[in-house]
Amino acid sequence: MAIAQALDALHALLGERCSISKSERDLHGRSESHFPPMPPDAVVWPETTAEVRQIVRICATEGCPVIGWGAGTSLEGHGLAVQGGVVVDFAHMNRVLEIRQADMDVTVQPGVTREALNEELRATGLFFPVDPGANATLGGMAMTRASGTTTVRYGSMRDNVLALEVVLADGRVIRTGTRARKSAAGYDLTALMVGSEGTLGLVTELTLRLSGIPEATSAGICAFPDMGSAVNAVIETIQMGIPMARIEFACAETARAFTAYAGVEMAEAPHLMVEFHGAPDSVAQNAERFAEIVADHGGAPFRWSTREEERRALWALRHAGYYAILASRPGARALVTDICVPISRLAQAMAETQADIAASPLPGPILGHVGDGNFHAVLMIDEAVPAELDEAKRLAQRMAERALRLGGTCTGEHGIGMGKTGLMAAEHGAGWDVMGQLKTALDPQNLMNPGKLVPGN
Amino acid sequence: MAIAQALDALHALLGERCSISKSERDLHGRSESHFPPMPPDAVVWPETTAEVRQIVRICATEGCPVIGWGAGTSLEGHGLAVQGGVVVDFAHMNRVLEIRQADMDVTVQPGVTREALNEELRATGLFFPVDPGANATLGGMAMTRASGTTTVRYGSMRDNVLALEVVLADGRVIRTGTRARKSAAGYDLTALMVGSEGTLGLVTELTLRLSGIPEATSAGICAFPDMGSAVNAVIETIQMGIPMARIEFACAETARAFTAYAGVEMAEAPHLMVEFHGAPDSVAQNAERFAEIVADHGGAPFRWSTREEERRALWALRHAGYYAILASRPGARALVTDICVPISRLAQAMAETQADIAASPLPGPILGHVGDGNFHAVLMIDEAVPAELDEAKRLAQRMAERALRLGGTCTGEHGIGMGKTGLMAAEHGAGWDVMGQLKTALDPQNLMNPGKLVPGN
Repeated sequence: MAIAQALDALHALLGERCSISKSERDLHGRSESHFPPMPPDAVVWPETTAEVRQIVRICATEGCPVIGWGAGTSLEGHGLAVQGGVVVDFAHMNRVLEIRQADMDVTVQPGVTREALNEELRATGLFFPVDPGANATLGGMAMTRASGTTTVRYGSMRDNVLALEVVLADGRVIRTGTRARKSAAGYDLTALMVGSEGTLGLVTELTLRLSGIPEATSAGICAFPDMGSAVNAVIETIQMGIPMARIEFACAETARAFTAYAGVEMAEAPHLMVEFHGAPDSVAQNAERFAEIVADHGGAPFRWSTREEERRALWALRHAGYYAILASRPGARALVTDICVPISRLAQAMAETQADIAASPLPGPILGHVGDGNFHAVLMIDEAVPAELDEAKRLAQRMAERALRLGGTCTGEHGIGMGKTGLMAAEHGAGWDVMGQLKTALDPQNLMNPGKLVPGN
Repeated sequence: MAIAQALDALHALLGERCSISKSERDLHGRSESHFPPMPPDAVVWPETTAEVRQIVRICATEGCPVIGWGAGTSLEGHGLAVQGGVVVDFAHMNRVLEIRQADMDVTVQPGVTREALNEELRATGLFFPVDPGANATLGGMAMTRASGTTTVRYGSMRDNVLALEVVLADGRVIRTGTRARKSAAGYDLTALMVGSEGTLGLVTELTLRLSGIPEATSAGICAFPDMGSAVNAVIETIQMGIPMARIEFACAETARAFTAYAGVEMAEAPHLMVEFHGAPDSVAQNAERFAEIVADHGGAPFRWSTREEERRALWALRHAGYYAILASRPGARALVTDICVPISRLAQAMAETQADIAASPLPGPILGHVGDGNFHAVLMIDEAVPAELDEAKRLAQRMAERALRLGGTCTGEHGIGMGKTGLMAAEHGAGWDVMGQLKTALDPQNLMNPGKLVPGN
């Protein structure tokens, strides 16, 4: 790899927007995950699609890896420069290009974060619903097929990306999709790119579906005597077809961490946090129907509110879950892992997972987007003790194998990155080889985010 | 191509389930479209995935094209044997394999039709919502990314296929997806296969999402003074966020054809046919809100009913639209074409299309799934007059170009087949070449449904 030549050309193109400083390389060599730092050789900050295209062409000529970078909030090491190369940070491509209220869609650059987009939308009566918790960039969310608290109602990035502009490994720029709400015109390249983790190209523009801010919203929280009761309440709620906008689980340990971290008063018991969107009548009716289900499963009285500040406080608490849990073991790092199973298997998957973690020496609170059958374990480790990381990996591996055994997937939302390639053959069989063939067809030099997702990395 | 050797091997494998009779070849060489018949060299009826695999392997060895066949209801010539070869008819693979009520999903063989599936589901409280009108097979619907009257509420095949079993061109069998409601585990092979029109492999099993039969349903129809008023009522309804389960447009000519064909009494005026699903209160409320919008746009009083037989009659009428229109010009065949545009452009797209057709000598009623921005023109031609087919093709071409100019797609639901390959470069640019690269990666001999969808055919 002629990295030196690539860096010369990138400097000539971008000037100060190409950095080889140790601090920038270190900042872009870290992740939220347990992986050791892997700094790239350089970081670049393009401002236009044309610049991204030139960057990719330079790297293709010199055989230099190219790794996209959004907010750095990935949990499976997606942005790490395993084989060195250039990190393309989209921080300067952070404009909302066009809001089309009548069509309920918006075109944005990849560096716009979901919170920034919703801030821009606040006068329109519309919002972008996908909510993974972290204030990730929309480019990063598309690339990891992100989902989150509202997916049970509004879908994931798979459902909310209408079209993409993508710079391919050879510098071609393609537009996948149109602004039509549906199409039967050929292979679904948008869906192929969403979730491709930067291994097929760099996203330089996104057109996203928006949703109307519901007329009324109610939200609430309630405690349950044990995890099984809470999960069975979720299953019954989903099977009854009660339209939930959010239905989140937090285990007793998580509740304790919330109490310590945020100063709220929560019983040290499993909780469900829920939200309803719709017309005022239906929001109230659905909350009452849910309250009955909660009571049937032995839950504490379900109190709900339509007051905006209470609702905001509830979800701010939920979104602080990861940090609250980390704070419960000072100095710890976490291996955060997620799986997703059919709803009928959720109780079994969660019970077996909790028992497995309870039998290990590691603390590992469980929480998640249970309405989708999706949950996380935050396995806390002391980095100075290698045996702890090994144990966390074993627990995560068993969790993923359990998901596959129960007809589910090894990751509902965090993605593969470098953390879960070892599970791909088990989940997809020959389908993983097919992914490798598609990758080779579009990136024969294996320069787009090498070491991630596909076989042979 | 050693077709003779392939046929010998297929006969040895399948006996009487391999036919070279003229009648079978003719039956499988026709389509609902305007294309001339193109009979295959043979028709085979596999009963298992293993047999499909052997068929594909025999054909791969002998370089013989393989074309999947469902109910033969495609409108763009998807099933025609342009280069000869073997048609694989899935009529014998028509079992519903497993209904999982708790998870609201079902696994079926590809030859099950949507009506047969809903018949099997009738005791479960669940239904499969995608409704293209024709009683197509679910395999065919997946391969064309079908949608239809209910897509505005329930999505298309893109949204309702959870997982597929696919036999690839080299005989490998892959399973795309799991029964989890979402996944971030690698490239979305399910989405790549849905809409691939048999050019990447043959689907041998589908796992589909089901929906709960709504507690209440109301449906109704109303006339408008002109097309613009009807379309603007649709646009306002969608933009107001009124949750429509169906919202269909039929032009004045279509209404006249309905009157003649079905003996109903319809004003010779543009109509909207709508349906609401939900709780009884909300169904009534939404119907009332819609009635107000209708009145604001000068529509006739909107009458709706929750009576099942009236509802069934309404949609039976709608589904007979194609045949009612054909009957309005005795002896005619039709070039049926569809486009889909952003909702804000729908009025313009429909007005320009209607004006263009009015200026031509051909009758061409317009109808469609306007809640999605999707509509059809049924361009009727006398097959004995070649100039009429040419004129219909010109009208369809201009309709597709109009869709692209307005930010839409050249087909919302009928697909590309052999009818719209000429529009793919305009719609996708270099993206069409990418589709060709993906095709070559998975089917280097170009044996899976050659002559369709991708470049160079």
